Amino acid sequence: MEPIDFNRHPSSYLHWKLSVDGAIARLVMEVQEEKPWRPGYPLKLNSYDLGVDMELADVVQRLRFEHPDVRALVVTSTRDKIFCAGANIYMLQSSSHPFKVNFCKYTNETRIGLEEFARESGVRTLAALNGTASGGGYELAIACDEIHLIDDGSSAVSFPETPLLAVLPGTGGLTRLVDKRKIRRDVADVFCTVAEGFRGAKALKTGLVDAVHSRSRFEAKVQERLQQIVAAAPKSARHGPGVVLPPVRPTVDGDTLRYEHVTLEVSPKTRVATLTVRAPKGPQPKDGAELLAAGGNAWAIAFARQLDDALLQLRFVLDTVGLVLLKTEGDAAAVLAVDEMLAKHADHWLVKETTLLIGRVLRRLDLTGRSFFALIEPGSCFAGTLLELALAADRSYMLNDPQRPVHLQLSAMNAGKLPMPHGLSRLDCRFLGAPQKAKEALAVREPIDAEQAEELALVTFAPDEIDWDDEVRVAIEERAAMSPDALTGMEASLRFAGPESMETKIFGRLSAWQNWIFTRPNSTGDEGALSLYGRPERPVFDYRRT
Amino acid sequence: MEPIDFNRHPSSYLHWKLSVDGAIARLVMEVQEEKPWRPGYPLKLNSYDLGVDMELADVVQRLRFEHPDVRALVVTSTRDKIFCAGANIYMLQSSSHPFKVNFCKYTNETRIGLEEFARESGVRTLAALNGTASGGGYELAIACDEIHLIDDGSSAVSFPETPLLAVLPGTGGLTRLVDKRKIRRDVADVFCTVAEGFRGAKALKTGLVDAVHSRSRFEAKVQERLQQIVAAAPKSARHGPGVVLPPVRPTVDGDTLRYEHVTLEVSPKTRVATLTVRAPKGPQPKDGAELLAAGGNAWAIAFARQLDDALLQLRFVLDTVGLVLLKTEGDAAAVLAVDEMLAKHADHWLVKETTLLIGRVLRRLDLTGRSFFALIEPGSCFAGTLLELALAADRSYMLNDPQRPVHLQLSAMNAGKLPMPHGLSRLDCRFLGAPQKAKEALAVREPIDAEQAEELALVTFAPDEIDWDDEVRVAIEERAAMSPDALTGMEASLRFAGPESMETKIFGRLSAWQNWIFTRPNSTGDEGALSLYGRPERPVFDYRRT
Repeated sequence: MEPIDFNRHPSSYLHWKLSVDGAIARLVMEVQEEKPWRPGYPLKLNSYDLGVDMELADVVQRLRFEHPDVRALVVTSTRDKIFCAGANIYMLQSSSHPFKVNFCKYTNETRIGLEEFARESGVRTLAALNGTASGGGYELAIACDEIHLIDDGSSAVSFPETPLLAVLPGTGGLTRLVDKRKIRRDVADVFCTVAEGFRGAKALKTGLVDAVHSRSRFEAKVQERLQQIVAAAPKSARHGPGVVLPPVRPTVDGDTLRYEHVTLEVSPKTRVATLTVRAPKGPQPKDGAELLAAGGNAWAIAFARQLDDALLQLRFVLDTVGLVLLKTEGDAAAVLAVDEMLAKHADHWLVKETTLLIGRVLRRLDLTGRSFFALIEPGSCFAGTLLELALAADRSYMLNDPQRPVHLQLSAMNAGKLPMPHGLSRLDCRFLGAPQKAKEALAVREPIDAEQAEELALVTFAPDEIDWDDEVRVAIEERAAMSPDALTGMEASLRFAGPESMETKIFGRLSAWQNWIFTRPNSTGDEGALSLYGRPERPVFDYRRT
Repeated sequence: MEPIDFNRHPSSYLHWKLSVDGAIARLVMEVQEEKPWRPGYPLKLNSYDLGVDMELADVVQRLRFEHPDVRALVVTSTRDKIFCAGANIYMLQSSSHPFKVNFCKYTNETRIGLEEFARESGVRTLAALNGTASGGGYELAIACDEIHLIDDGSSAVSFPETPLLAVLPGTGGLTRLVDKRKIRRDVADVFCTVAEGFRGAKALKTGLVDAVHSRSRFEAKVQERLQQIVAAAPKSARHGPGVVLPPVRPTVDGDTLRYEHVTLEVSPKTRVATLTVRAPKGPQPKDGAELLAAGGNAWAIAFARQLDDALLQLRFVLDTVGLVLLKTEGDAAAVLAVDEMLAKHADHWLVKETTLLIGRVLRRLDLTGRSFFALIEPGSCFAGTLLELALAADRSYMLNDPQRPVHLQLSAMNAGKLPMPHGLSRLDCRFLGAPQKAKEALAVREPIDAEQAEELALVTFAPDEIDWDDEVRVAIEERAAMSPDALTGMEASLRFAGPESMETKIFGRLSAWQNWIFTRPNSTGDEGALSLYGRPERPVFDYRRT
């Protein structure tokens, strides 16, 4: 197995320039045309591919951890008349369907992470559109808190996907238009069907941007606004020094990826992977100050980042793995001690960021298009934060063997500190029909054995030692044999009971439509609009509506 | 054009038997194997196709209007060991993608209509599963208020779609499992992957059914429960006599369908249709009693049913029509007089049913996968209920010509009486970002000219007489030329801003995933599971997950 290196660092960014000056961070997009992530397509007009987005994800993560004094982030570009042209079309043309879907999912998560950063970390984000922002470029802007557009008679914001490419602005754009910015649906309809988009005053009047400034005043106006933001920033617990995040690098051993706290073991033949998370070993930080000292090496931060990387390898590299067995190993008490610290010192900025990070990684798991079975066996430590893995799984098996007792345990972390994409805790979502059962479970803070776990409905199955092997084996074989598409659709429908949020609307509604459209001949067929983009031929459509 | 005849009548049902005895209606499914809607597939095991579902839709509609004394509806079958095997697989195999999608949409609407009937008309619905209910059979059961299953050692409820066919239970089943019945997601996961489903006690314990009864006591227990329901029924304004609904039959004139109050005119070359609704002519009922006397011939009932039929023709027959121009004709005062009656006598059961009917038809329009432009021209009557057509449109054009003034007008019907699928009024959804604008508009009860309509943001465009022709013509041409798939996904994302309901989750999330899965080789390819169903070959899957 050849893992993808998702590690990036500001010192070696190819496509972005990050500078931090006191409370203001400035992020400049300067995509290097000749440095695509895969060879074969030039990244013209500040268009982006996975490599560009990995750097953006890195920026947002580092701002959270390394730059706690920042109160305002401006995203802009220095290219003449162009902010960003969106996802690179030639990259999309030359990508497989699974890659396209996972690329979009990743870029969506990056933008949702940017919004969470602004909301939770007291940083206001400003898109300074020094030129046209089209497609994913405007989707990046709309993920910021406010949008300033240069008014130069040519720069526009636009969603040309539908008229030009016969696909959707799928990085949350449609949802954010009507649900976040609450643009009138008929105005949104017009905007999304006019390839050239809206400029200056029209963009402002329709609510697509928050301010327009003439070319001569653009820089000054943006600076002025950034100063205002900083001056008006509410008091925050965030302050330097920050924490430097070390790279996350697994060692590769055949079909196994080994991280310090996480192992991903793949069986290509059976299309099953085992993802094991290990409890902390050795002393862990007892408060915010100690967490600050330990930095990225603290278990709470390190395991989350390693799990995150493993999930991304699953999505991008291990696309034929259909089923992931979730396991844990180690001392439950050690996990619970970390949980206690996270709960007790939740006011410390780094403790908060650490909890938010774990939450994001678990949501990445919720949104991963693979089946997850949790196997709760002797030696495991499904406690508190790590119990969330079992609650995130599509189902769980807990061994009920009096000779080799196994336990679960709850902590304050299971009570809403690590919410799912729709805002519910995994426990509340599990017990949507019987909310008292969530309370009942949370009231038990002692170790819970298999029988009690079944009684509390915390696990799906608790086979005894005689049945365990067969029952688990058959379940695994059956699951791995089913159609991957039907499972993806089924899991996406069953995992998120209850309310929808903008985030789940993006992943559940917008992305589902987008996946469908990507498979249709009108976009990706030989005569489809996406396939023919950049060529002189005009697309030929099958005009039957569904 | 050859319209489909959606008219059905109990006297000539092929597949259902409806009997009404006092407050109890009994609906028995007895699908005639040799009478499919299209030749080519036998309807074995009480499986259904569009023809079977047309009759079910007719039943629900007639119960509302013709049988106001009913307080309990039991749905059952008399086949040995089988309630219903769901949608017919061979019918699905032999259907085009647009037909499959529209078939599912229609069956979904029928079941949502059944739920609305129960909720709004004070009727409790009971599925008496005398035998196995699989796939769409269980989806019909789960659309009822309560489910009683025979406990005979063989009868089960099941969703075998994913394991057997590599598709989803797409008639709302997945959503209703976790969102309506609030089944735990891991239990739902197991249930949806076990082809044979759950029987008796297990189905009861997991919450999939509400009661199980032995074979010998099944009939008596169901009867007993029906009597209980009737005895406990809250006082209702509904009482007989009811109103008989006449057939809805357009005359066909080339590419034009003419109904009494509705005309659908198709231009096959341009793939554009014009759908015109006309205001009432002549005296209309002034209260509930007069409405009862006029019955299905009253304009309020008749126009809604005719519009409904036209929308279904659009979906099933006119699949290459991409754009529908919505027009109205006649006297706005006549529309507003009907609205006044509907608002003033809302407590009368038939007035309520009429308003609910209009609401359902407008939601059918919201959920129709075509672009809608409202053209507000001289002679039109976009007032009150008919103004909803303009608010439901993806965009609207209103002529601003002082020589030929045009007006809109609001009524109480625009203030939430005709909700969208997610429960918001079209006005509230339009002004999600500026709720005071909805109030502002509702405060104006006088006729509103083009300039004021633009000011109130009630229309998208108000071109003057010089620009009108060109602007409208170009917009129509551009829209009709775009990819139908991208437009469907775009409109589905822009139309339903705000909260999601079970209904919108079904159409927006579940159906979108289903559409995607239907286009994937793993289900409908030559070696896909749906294609090979019933044959000895095993499906071959591309196991790449997305």
